[in-house]
Amino acid sequence: MHITFCCTDTKPEPWIEGLRAALPDAALSVWQPGTPAADYAVVWAPPQEFLDQQPEIKALFNIGAGVDALLKCRLPPQARVVRLDDAGMSVQMAEYVCHAVIRHFREFDGYEADVKQGRWSYRKPRSRADCAVGVMGLGVLGARVARALQVFEFPVNGWSRSPKSIDGVRGFSGSGGFHDFLAASRVLVNLLPLTSDTQDILNRDTLSRLQPGGYVINVARGAHLVEDDLLALLDAGHLAGATLDVFRTEPLPAGHPFWTHPRITLTPHTSARTLRDESIAQIAGKIRALEQGEPIAGIVDPVRGY
Amino acid sequence: MHITFCCTDTKPEPWIEGLRAALPDAALSVWQPGTPAADYAVVWAPPQEFLDQQPEIKALFNIGAGVDALLKCRLPPQARVVRLDDAGMSVQMAEYVCHAVIRHFREFDGYEADVKQGRWSYRKPRSRADCAVGVMGLGVLGARVARALQVFEFPVNGWSRSPKSIDGVRGFSGSGGFHDFLAASRVLVNLLPLTSDTQDILNRDTLSRLQPGGYVINVARGAHLVEDDLLALLDAGHLAGATLDVFRTEPLPAGHPFWTHPRITLTPHTSARTLRDESIAQIAGKIRALEQGEPIAGIVDPVRGY
Repeated sequence: MHITFCCTDTKPEPWIEGLRAALPDAALSVWQPGTPAADYAVVWAPPQEFLDQQPEIKALFNIGAGVDALLKCRLPPQARVVRLDDAGMSVQMAEYVCHAVIRHFREFDGYEADVKQGRWSYRKPRSRADCAVGVMGLGVLGARVARALQVFEFPVNGWSRSPKSIDGVRGFSGSGGFHDFLAASRVLVNLLPLTSDTQDILNRDTLSRLQPGGYVINVARGAHLVEDDLLALLDAGHLAGATLDVFRTEPLPAGHPFWTHPRITLTPHTSARTLRDESIAQIAGKIRALEQGEPIAGIVDPVRGY
Repeated sequence: MHITFCCTDTKPEPWIEGLRAALPDAALSVWQPGTPAADYAVVWAPPQEFLDQQPEIKALFNIGAGVDALLKCRLPPQARVVRLDDAGMSVQMAEYVCHAVIRHFREFDGYEADVKQGRWSYRKPRSRADCAVGVMGLGVLGARVARALQVFEFPVNGWSRSPKSIDGVRGFSGSGGFHDFLAASRVLVNLLPLTSDTQDILNRDTLSRLQPGGYVINVARGAHLVEDDLLALLDAGHLAGATLDVFRTEPLPAGHPFWTHPRITLTPHTSARTLRDESIAQIAGKIRALEQGEPIAGIVDPVRGY
C-alpha cells in the first residue's frame, strides 16, 4: 500500500513520520511530478497534475474542514474524498466563536478603548434575551458551536439545509426557513460548507434581514461573504460590527479596507487549525477500515459538496 | 413589615418599584437618617449609622456577590446577612473568565497587534494540555466558571477551603493543598471571598509557584492581590500577563501603573453585575420564606466570612 502526501503550504516531514509510526507497513512518499501512483493520499489544495496522475487512488484525505478547493478540481472518478471527523477543530471553533460573541455582547472593545483613555466607565449591560445567535451550518463544527453558546445562556437559532434537531436550539431549515432564521437572529455565525448554493450567501439582502445592530462572524469561507455589502451595511449602521477569519483572497491583500475598519476584527484564517497528531490517528484508522472493507465516516458527497 | 433600601451608588426608585410589585403588603422606604427602624433591608456598603439604627432588623440582603464590605461593619447582633444565590451573576462570570482565558490561550492580543501593523501572521497553537486553569474558590460563581472552562477542554484545577467535588475538576483544598494547586496551574482565576485569611493571598510567593508563563485573572476583590508583587513577576517574565477587574482602590486611581501596562488587561469592576429584576425576585422569595419560618439559602457565617 502506497500513501502519498500532497499538501500545499504544509511541512511534510512530521506528517510522514507520524503516518509511518501509525501504519508501519505502508510505503510513504511526498508527492512530486513523477512519484508513482498511490493508493491513498493526504491532501490540501493539491495541483491538478497530482490528481491526473492517480488512476487507482482509493481515497483522498483532506486535512481541512472544507473540501471546496478540492472539489473544484477534476477528480479521479473512483476516488472518494474524505473529510476529517473533527481532529480538534470543533473545540477551537467553539472557542473562537464564543470569544467573539462574548466580546461583542459584553462590549469589551468599548471598555478597552475607555481604558486607553484612562476612563473608568459604566456601560449598561445588554440584554441576553435580545442577543439571539444564529448559527448557519449544523455539521460537526456548527453543532459544537451551538452547544457551547448555550453554556452562556444565549438564545441560539440554527439553520441547515435539511432539518436538524439540537437540544435547546431553535431550528430552521432550507431556503423556506432562511429569512425567518435571519429575522430571529442578531448575531450571525457562518459555518456553512462552500458550495455553488452557498457562495455569496451573506450579501446585502440577507444581512439586511438580521435584527438591527446585527453582528457577523464568518469562520467558514471568504467566498460566502460579499465584502462590499458588509461594508455598506456597517456604514449604514444596520450592522454593529463583524469578526472575520476568512476572506475572498488570502492573505488579505495590503490596502484592503478590512485591515483598518474600526468595527471589523480580523484574524488570519486561524479560527480552527488542523491538529496534526489527531489528524494522523484518524487518517490511519480510516485507511485500516477501508482496507478491511469496513465503512468509514466523513465521505464527501461530491454533488452536495460536503 | 417594613423593608428599607440602603445601597450606596445605586438608584433606589426601580428597586422600590420592583419590591412593591413583588411584596405588595410591605411598607417600603429609602433609608436616610431618621427613617424608622426596619424589619428587612436591601443593602450595599451601607453607612455604620444605618446599621446602628436597626435594633430589630431580621435580615440584611446584600446585593453583590461579596459581603466583605458589610462584614467590616458593626452589625446588629440579631441580623442575618444574606447573599443572593446567583441573580444572573454566575453566567456573567463564566463569560468574563472564559473570554479572558481564551483570549490569552489563543493569543488574540498578539494577532490584534499584528493586524494593526497589516501583518497576516502565523502563530504556533499552544497546547491545551499545558494550559491548566486553576480556579480559587468553588462557590456558586467558581463552580460555574470551572464547568464552563471544561466546555473548551482545558484541564481545570479547583481549590477551596474545604474539599469540594466537581465533575472533571481536579480538586485541592485547605492550606495543605494550596502549593500543589498552584504548581499544577498555569492560568489562575481568583473567585475567593475576601476574608482575613484570603487578603493578600495573591503575592510574590504564591504567584511564583504558578507554572512559568503564568496568567492571573482576578475577578474577586482587589485586596486579594498584592499589586506590586504582580508587577514584579510580570517584569521578571515569570508571569505572561493578567486580566484584572477589581483593584485595591476603585475607581483605579489616575496614574496607577496598571492603566498602561502592556500585559495587563483591565475592566472597571464589571465582570458580574447584579441584575435587578432577578435580585428582587430572590429577595422577595427569601423574605416570604423567613416570614413563614422556612429556611433560606445564602445566610452568611460571619465568622467564616462568606
